[in-house]
Amino acid sequence: MDPRSTIDEAIAAIRPPDAASADAARALQLRLTKPAGALGRIEELAVWAAGVLRKPAPAPPRKLIVVAAADHGVAAEGVSAFPQDVTAQMVANFLAGGAAVNVLASHADADVRVVDAGVRGDHDDPRLHVAKVRGGTDSMTRGPAMSRAEAETLVARGIAFARSAVADGYGAIALGDMGIGNTTAAAAITSVLAGASPRITTGRGTGVDDRAYATKLAAIERAIAVNAPDAADPVDVLAKVGGFEIAFLAGVALGAATAGAVVVLDGYPTTAAALVAAGIAPACVDYMLASHQSAEPGHRVALEHLGLRPLLELDMRLGEGTGAALAMTLLDAALRIPREMATFDSAGVSRGERETQPEA
Amino acid sequence: MDPRSTIDEAIAAIRPPDAASADAARALQLRLTKPAGALGRIEELAVWAAGVLRKPAPAPPRKLIVVAAADHGVAAEGVSAFPQDVTAQMVANFLAGGAAVNVLASHADADVRVVDAGVRGDHDDPRLHVAKVRGGTDSMTRGPAMSRAEAETLVARGIAFARSAVADGYGAIALGDMGIGNTTAAAAITSVLAGASPRITTGRGTGVDDRAYATKLAAIERAIAVNAPDAADPVDVLAKVGGFEIAFLAGVALGAATAGAVVVLDGYPTTAAALVAAGIAPACVDYMLASHQSAEPGHRVALEHLGLRPLLELDMRLGEGTGAALAMTLLDAALRIPREMATFDSAGVSRGERETQPEA
Repeated sequence: MDPRSTIDEAIAAIRPPDAASADAARALQLRLTKPAGALGRIEELAVWAAGVLRKPAPAPPRKLIVVAAADHGVAAEGVSAFPQDVTAQMVANFLAGGAAVNVLASHADADVRVVDAGVRGDHDDPRLHVAKVRGGTDSMTRGPAMSRAEAETLVARGIAFARSAVADGYGAIALGDMGIGNTTAAAAITSVLAGASPRITTGRGTGVDDRAYATKLAAIERAIAVNAPDAADPVDVLAKVGGFEIAFLAGVALGAATAGAVVVLDGYPTTAAALVAAGIAPACVDYMLASHQSAEPGHRVALEHLGLRPLLELDMRLGEGTGAALAMTLLDAALRIPREMATFDSAGVSRGERETQPEA
Repeated sequence: MDPRSTIDEAIAAIRPPDAASADAARALQLRLTKPAGALGRIEELAVWAAGVLRKPAPAPPRKLIVVAAADHGVAAEGVSAFPQDVTAQMVANFLAGGAAVNVLASHADADVRVVDAGVRGDHDDPRLHVAKVRGGTDSMTRGPAMSRAEAETLVARGIAFARSAVADGYGAIALGDMGIGNTTAAAAITSVLAGASPRITTGRGTGVDDRAYATKLAAIERAIAVNAPDAADPVDVLAKVGGFEIAFLAGVALGAATAGAVVVLDGYPTTAAALVAAGIAPACVDYMLASHQSAEPGHRVALEHLGLRPLLELDMRLGEGTGAALAMTLLDAALRIPREMATFDSAGVSRGERETQPEA
């Protein structure tokens, strides 16, 4: 199937979450031995996930963190604190199990799948999922980062990857990113799709100083001026000022929503991917869990545009899916509550006499 | 040993956390394959816990959640949404494993120990740790909730309990509470020790309506007026407007700090216990981790008075140690990072060239 057909099929296939399961989950929460609503967002998370997973009390799903890596032409212009080689070096580190996401995935009982979505140079490792069309985008400051056809190919490959992962039994898929320069792309995408000035959407990424920050901001402003991306056409925005890993992850979000899995966002680049996915198919947002609010100021803009409230706020700014991994442990906790807690009736505990705050 | 001597000995025995271990932990974080500071509060947590546990890269400690339960005379005055019998019913539920804290403790790989610190009626269960002097306090609106001798006895029993738990191998101890009416006591204690009006420190607990809220606020104001607790004497405040489980938990905090364990706070009643402990021995605050900001407005006041910033904000208002259990999973994650991640040197990853934000 050609990439555009894969995308169109995904758009058509996304169903709304199951309201009956969510309603049943909400009713079950009221019978558990605790005041109504007393677990706050943990209860809301369980009710929401019940709708997504289409069962009143779903078991904690098998969890996968997809770490998609790619290089960015704009990195050569000094927008990052790290040299571009670090993208490939970190791919090796992910495969060897030495990165932060490997540790936090293990802690969350999640599997990690590393995807080469466009890294410069090749890794000869059978565990690496190679999805790239080429290594590294062109610099968005001089023209489109990639062609529209390349963007659609990466999105379609992400859709297929996610559908296959759900078919293999994963019920929660986290988006993780690696790409030196990719908060530059995230800021450009967010500026266009959320309609916000680069002065608001541009942050310090992994930690640039004032001079590099000015370079980064100027690069984003120039990229938008040079390319004039069409805010009404998310694939156009993705091609002109995006990145290969962002394209692949947008596809993963679409594919996971199509297949009925929880989609866990991480930091800024993955949320930019979510903005693209939401632009392509607004219904996929109902499947998304915002794991955390990162230290990047534009991340807040992107999450607000999606209408998502982050679960954690821990001043993280690493990416890789690290915040998503932490949120996955809370998702499991939330899903265990209705399956393992006693009810007022089963435990012989009196209900509140004056209780006035049943969950809406 | 008499209770007062136990308390005095604990005050004298609390050492500051080990600065050398914390410094070594901070230096180790800079060598791991991630930008300096990119894991935000997860890094800070690891550095802090290294100081408390006196090792540069301590293993995740064995974890215990102490759920102390007691009844409150003031509950008869209609300050809670639940009948007073629920305290004893929930003790049975904790022992049977059906409460929220049991599920979240299991998820956090923490053990639960249930303590009768002053419940009306007795449970005949060998797993219950009985620490009570009597069942239920007197109503604080008519005089002291308990005598000073009773308060000191409960604090001393909490100290002994915690020291014994640390001797048994626990390195992180969470405070959990159960007691219908205990956010009334927590608000009264916080008002006196943090110097804040009951209008600020009084919330809706497990969910009272407007009429019961007015009753609760009036009870707290009356309790403070009738008893005139001495803000400079935390045991006086505890005896006059506190509760038996709060007294026991204040002792647990002191004992755990004395023995060099992490003390994980939960919601409002446990933080009121922490205020009492901090009043008795200010040095114990260095051992405390604020797990979450609850939906109770006074909880924020109490945490700010302690100078602690909560890790999570999930609109929880259940108590039992449920928020502490969730934070314990983050503590484990934080401690695994420096033990399991690769370093820049070991992984062959280039360091940032322009990096300007080493952790302070």
